[in-house]
Amino acid sequence: MAIPLEQALAVMVSTFHKYSARQGDKFKLSKAELKELLTKEILGCSSIDWLSIRCIMNDLDVNKDNEVDFQEFACFLACVAMGFNDFFKDHCQKQLRKK
Amino acid sequence: MAIPLEQALAVMVSTFHKYSARQGDKFKLSKAELKELLTKEILGCSSIDWLSIRCIMNDLDVNKDNEVDFQEFACFLACVAMGFNDFFKDHCQKQLRKK
Repeated sequence: MAIPLEQALAVMVSTFHKYSARQGDKFKLSKAELKELLTKEILGCSSIDWLSIRCIMNDLDVNKDNEVDFQEFACFLACVAMGFNDFFKDHCQKQLRKK
Repeated sequence: MAIPLEQALAVMVSTFHKYSARQGDKFKLSKAELKELLTKEILGCSSIDWLSIRCIMNDLDVNKDNEVDFQEFACFLACVAMGFNDFFKDHCQKQLRKK
C-alpha cells in the first residue's frame, strides 16, 4: 500500500528528472529546463519570464555551476512548501478567531 | 486540474498538520507526534525507537525549542527526497552501463 507522503517525495524526484533529462547533464536542470518545469508544474509560475528565471537560478544555484541539481531543487521545493504552510496556518488562525 | 507537484507539496503540509495538531502547539511537532508521523508515514521508520527519535529531533530542532516546526520538517523531507533521488540516480546509471 503506497503511503501518501512517500508518493509525494517520489513525485518531487520524478518531476525533476522529467525535465533534467532533456538536454545537457541528465541529472541537472539548465535554465531552459527550469523554466519549462516551473511553467508547467507550478501554477503560480505558468507565465514566468526569463528575468525571473535568472533571479531564481541565481538564488538556487548555490555551487554556481549555472545549473540546478536535485539538492538545490529540493531546497527550492521546501521553500515553496513553507509558503503553502503559511497560507494554511493563516487560514486556520482566521477560522479560530471567527469562533 | 490539480498539478502533481503542487499536490505533493500540499500532502507535505497536510501530513505535518495531521500530527502537529494533536497536542501542545498546534503548529509544531512534539517528540511523540514526530514519532507517530514517522512510524505511520515513512515506511523505513515503521519500527523507529525513542533513541533514534531523540537523534532525529536533535538534528531537526535548529532553534532548540524541543519541537519541530514546519520549516525544520520541510528541510527533513528535502533530505529524505535526496535519498530517494540518489537511489533513482544509481538505478539509472546501472541501466546505462548495461547498454
